[in-house]
Amino acid sequence: MANHIKIGIVGATGYTGVELLRLLASHPKAEVTAVTSRSEAGIAISDYFPSLRGTYDLKFLLPEEASLEQCDVVFFATPHGVAMRDAPALLERGVKVIDLSADFRLKDIPTWEQWYGMPFTAADTLKEAVYGLCELNREQIQHARLVANPGCYPTCVSLPLIPLLKNHLINTDMPLIADCKSGVSGAGRKASIGTLFCEAADNFKAYGVTGHRHLPEIKQTISTLQNGAEKGFVFVPHLTPLIRGMQATQYIYLNDDVDPYSILRDFYHNSPFIDIMPPGSSPETRTVRGANVCRISIQKAPESDLWIILSVIDNLVKGAAGQAIQNMNIMFNFPETFGLDLPPLLP
Amino acid sequence: MANHIKIGIVGATGYTGVELLRLLASHPKAEVTAVTSRSEAGIAISDYFPSLRGTYDLKFLLPEEASLEQCDVVFFATPHGVAMRDAPALLERGVKVIDLSADFRLKDIPTWEQWYGMPFTAADTLKEAVYGLCELNREQIQHARLVANPGCYPTCVSLPLIPLLKNHLINTDMPLIADCKSGVSGAGRKASIGTLFCEAADNFKAYGVTGHRHLPEIKQTISTLQNGAEKGFVFVPHLTPLIRGMQATQYIYLNDDVDPYSILRDFYHNSPFIDIMPPGSSPETRTVRGANVCRISIQKAPESDLWIILSVIDNLVKGAAGQAIQNMNIMFNFPETFGLDLPPLLP
Amino acid sequence: MANHIKIGIVGATGYTGVELLRLLASHPKAEVTAVTSRSEAGIAISDYFPSLRGTYDLKFLLPEEASLEQCDVVFFATPHGVAMRDAPALLERGVKVIDLSADFRLKDIPTWEQWYGMPFTAADTLKEAVYGLCELNREQIQHARLVANPGCYPTCVSLPLIPLLKNHLINTDMPLIADCKSGVSGAGRKASIGTLFCEAADNFKAYGVTGHRHLPEIKQTISTLQNGAEKGFVFVPHLTPLIRGMQATQYIYLNDDVDPYSILRDFYHNSPFIDIMPPGSSPETRTVRGANVCRISIQKAPESDLWIILSVIDNLVKGAAGQAIQNMNIMFNFPETFGLDLPPLLP
Amino acid sequence: MANHIKIGIVGATGYTGVELLRLLASHPKAEVTAVTSRSEAGIAISDYFPSLRGTYDLKFLLPEEASLEQCDVVFFATPHGVAMRDAPALLERGVKVIDLSADFRLKDIPTWEQWYGMPFTAADTLKEAVYGLCELNREQIQHARLVANPGCYPTCVSLPLIPLLKNHLINTDMPLIADCKSGVSGAGRKASIGTLFCEAADNFKAYGVTGHRHLPEIKQTISTLQNGAEKGFVFVPHLTPLIRGMQATQYIYLNDDVDPYSILRDFYHNSPFIDIMPPGSSPETRTVRGANVCRISIQKAPESDLWIILSVIDNLVKGAAGQAIQNMNIMFNFPETFGLDLPPLLP
Repeated sequence: MANHIKIGIVGATGYTGVELLRLLASHPKAEVTAVTSRSEAGIAISDYFPSLRGTYDLKFLLPEEASLEQCDVVFFATPHGVAMRDAPALLERGVKVIDLSADFRLKDIPTWEQWYGMPFTAADTLKEAVYGLCELNREQIQHARLVANPGCYPTCVSLPLIPLLKNHLINTDMPLIADCKSGVSGAGRKASIGTLFCEAADNFKAYGVTGHRHLPEIKQTISTLQNGAEKGFVFVPHLTPLIRGMQATQYIYLNDDVDPYSILRDFYHNSPFIDIMPPGSSPETRTVRGANVCRISIQKAPESDLWIILSVIDNLVKGAAGQAIQNMNIMFNFPETFGLDLPPLLP
Repeated sequence: MANHIKIGIVGATGYTGVELLRLLASHPKAEVTAVTSRSEAGIAISDYFPSLRGTYDLKFLLPEEASLEQCDVVFFATPHGVAMRDAPALLERGVKVIDLSADFRLKDIPTWEQWYGMPFTAADTLKEAVYGLCELNREQIQHARLVANPGCYPTCVSLPLIPLLKNHLINTDMPLIADCKSGVSGAGRKASIGTLFCEAADNFKAYGVTGHRHLPEIKQTISTLQNGAEKGFVFVPHLTPLIRGMQATQYIYLNDDVDPYSILRDFYHNSPFIDIMPPGSSPETRTVRGANVCRISIQKAPESDLWIILSVIDNLVKGAAGQAIQNMNIMFNFPETFGLDLPPLLP
Repeated sequence: MANHIKIGIVGATGYTGVELLRLLASHPKAEVTAVTSRSEAGIAISDYFPSLRGTYDLKFLLPEEASLEQCDVVFFATPHGVAMRDAPALLERGVKVIDLSADFRLKDIPTWEQWYGMPFTAADTLKEAVYGLCELNREQIQHARLVANPGCYPTCVSLPLIPLLKNHLINTDMPLIADCKSGVSGAGRKASIGTLFCEAADNFKAYGVTGHRHLPEIKQTISTLQNGAEKGFVFVPHLTPLIRGMQATQYIYLNDDVDPYSILRDFYHNSPFIDIMPPGSSPETRTVRGANVCRISIQKAPESDLWIILSVIDNLVKGAAGQAIQNMNIMFNFPETFGLDLPPLLP
Repeated sequence: MANHIKIGIVGATGYTGVELLRLLASHPKAEVTAVTSRSEAGIAISDYFPSLRGTYDLKFLLPEEASLEQCDVVFFATPHGVAMRDAPALLERGVKVIDLSADFRLKDIPTWEQWYGMPFTAADTLKEAVYGLCELNREQIQHARLVANPGCYPTCVSLPLIPLLKNHLINTDMPLIADCKSGVSGAGRKASIGTLFCEAADNFKAYGVTGHRHLPEIKQTISTLQNGAEKGFVFVPHLTPLIRGMQATQYIYLNDDVDPYSILRDFYHNSPFIDIMPPGSSPETRTVRGANVCRISIQKAPESDLWIILSVIDNLVKGAAGQAIQNMNIMFNFPETFGLDLPPLLP
């Protein structure tokens, strides 16, 4: 298709990969031209994902045979370690890269190595990586060659905090608590007992109480915006029997005389994917199912000085593939909503 | 919007109503201009269905205040009895009508009255109603003023049978059996104990063994195509814990020397929403979630003369709102896929 | 059956009612002899709940025809307002009463009237009511005629706090936060749109952010044990797509130099239904499904002074019917585990 | 415990293994004394399955260190191939064996080898194996040393057929069709993509249309009872998003003038686990959740000569561990209901 940018997807057999394929099928100015998978090379996408029968006429290729250097942009939907290894060569060939893995999210290399348990080998490339939380870094993303797409928890937790942190409204003497709940697709599409239907259905549990990889990522964002606020940050993720969906309940203290609802509403006035709901609202995960939207409400806890922030996203869309496409739109100067303006699927 | 047809929706607070709203938001040539509800009149659509915040800026109106006669087409997403009463006046004013309820599906009035338990009061209007199974009645729909949108079970069961029945390939000496499984949204969005989460989740059951309203509708279609084949027709619906989705497993005998796979594939060659899968396939409901697609496979049972037909639809899309929009597209001479070309949501 | 106490259940058509029936079927010293329901009078229990076919040979009776005064103990599994009206007469006739509704839970009548929206009419009876949180009030329950069975959230939240509050170990200058998640059965078995399968499945949301009836109940318990600790108490309930199960994540500050794990473990050493898990554990709701158990863990948040308490119960068992039977066992001097020693159902 | 038989379980880390542990904990005359697992040797049962904390104080042992020969009976809850290899030595030492795997279910060795894809190496032992469908073979089981516990589908499908087949009431000129639906636990507890939560939740599909291992097992039973009836037998299994539960919808023709309801009711009059429901009933899987019960109804299809049989079991109980314990009870001359008389968990 003329006038369409050419897209490559590395590692498209997981949930973020198939979600990129679903969303990009409706993009008016982009075309997926190469899709790679080591394990499924030679298989048609539409045989592997029958939901895409009639939508794509492509086969998975081995990465080395996919001519990714002819793409305008390549998405990495891979485990950590792969983009770090393969992105630099693409960047050199003039291909833009959006990495959905964690490789370029943390600016501090020792912290990355501690949490991801392997040596970090792309220090030079890291310097130019822009953290792709679109509503935070829109301008930098516009000029970026390499975008590190944020994790799902960091997106859901950070979006409501940004306007408050930017204005130093959060009381840093008191703790910030993020009690988060994620659907099971956040764990990815890999064979494991813990995410079997019979283990995860009709069950609720906390996990990662002793530490989760998204903790340093959130702290990095908080620290950037209001140094010190990250010191009292506590993060407890939970697993809930949803396919898609993530909810964060945050408990924070504000400095006096602030109307945080107005601040959020005004800050996000021109952000098409951020919905600030009236105080008293309880955003539901299903109201963002399949859509690149974050819905947020903020209200005071009854008989208390604490404020309660509720936010929901679809972890595979605004928390992964959707935000990646939003980043692409910004990088290529497309309207941000291209390919992302479909209403959520409800019920 | 200029050049857009104007759409009214009567009774839009149910699942087929909100699904019409979701799908029509992406239609390039149609605009919803009036939405009615007796119980929610005055409420904004986006307050009632927060998934549509940012998508619609309309309020529910009382039917009598909605100026439906200024619409080009009105959808009835109402319980039976309403369209029968209110459609004739709209037709007289030149408004086309697509009825998603059961009012105009059965041509035989006594049969209708027996199954729906009320007098039928629109005998004249019934004569012009076209049964809106798009792939069966495309040409008649093109010229129709009033379309009776089929039930979900009849759509899922009939689509794979049509090519076989048209060619009189089904052995009518033997039974036709349709063992069907439906997600819970088929029961509609009304307060009832039987469809509570705690009653329907983690449960499977047959229902309507002694008779279901979709039985005469399916028999009518079968009989039209191959008289006598409907005599041995047996239909058992089951409830399965899906939100959306319907699967039919049919057991039939064919006359000798037939390759039904080729017949289905050829018959549906130009039907964008019918996917004939290779023999041996097991279509999954999630591969059509949110999409106006029916996926079908046919294969011989091992060590037997029986043929097994498997078909899946999303009961709210190809089984209701999507097919209704497909009917609208045909009636207004739009491409059939307008507003309906989005890939399914998987996972 | 000789030597069996006789049990009546008022209002047994809901989820706590059928759960009482399920559990009492295995009790070695108790027999259900009368079961009432206004709406289902005359219907056999086993027709109404086919899961009990072969287990019970009783019919629902009208309350006035059920000879409840001949029972040794009557359980009220009714909406609030009923026990308040009918319990006093039974008590006068020497029948013990265990009320699973909220009528006698709050000692402060104006608070009760504010939260439950009706006049309280049994002030004298209230005085003798014992709050039936078994592990807290065992001795009083032993001599009680009337027990107010606690709510599910108060049970799940209070059990881990009791040992800490009793020893005044909680820092009352800082907030106590209880972020709670409940399965849908907590909403009861009544026709309503909000708890339909298609509304509650694949969805997660907070609710009652602006106030929940269990808030004053929890505060009353906290205040009894450590006056002032309830002042900073914040409670946010969430709905999660489980049939049964409840999880509380609590964030608290302790006074210095405390090992809360040892304190909990020692305190509950002789409590057969409280399981203190090793620090670092994440109790899962499914590990208590169908059982009268509360599993608890406590650990420090990483890089923080906050402590995180996780606790899970089955809201219908330890959060309702099971605890009611435990109360009955204590009142009648049976071993606490009678009828309650079955392992959870997993998977 | 004196007077208790000693039980060993080989391979107890799967769903049938943990279900044996759950049920046997309530058995009044049996005690689990040895539990083996190669992969988890040394781990406490209650660490591996926290639902059993407080119930078992045993560790998984390596099979060779478990002194299984000191048990009275050993259950094999293993993949096929293991019992075939290890059961003969135990039998020689006087230990009874109940095999929950498929090793000894088929009497015809070439058929077994064809479906299970490995050589069968215990031909002598096979001769004495009794097929443990309790209601069919009660007397043989009483004297058996080795019982082959039936598969879940064969149990659910065969139980309603037995009385009809024994009396040669089924018309063998016409097909017998079993359209079956199983919960996901039937696939076992092993890491695989196909049974992940995000693949199996909110999805329905047929599988094994081209052949399933339970087909020859069902045909063997049918053939034993009414030779020739198995010739027209068609079996289509489906996967439905339940943790536990299985439903069979069968379509059969009967010889004239038969009242099959009475025949089933009379035949199973003394079988405590078979519930023949009134015609018109739709047994639900949740009414047998966690219980060793098969509920059955039979009725004529409307306007047809076909009969519809509906049956439900919990695939892990009557379809696996429960029936195994029932077999044990018969073998050791205990009442059949020992350890198995708990009501189902509903909701």
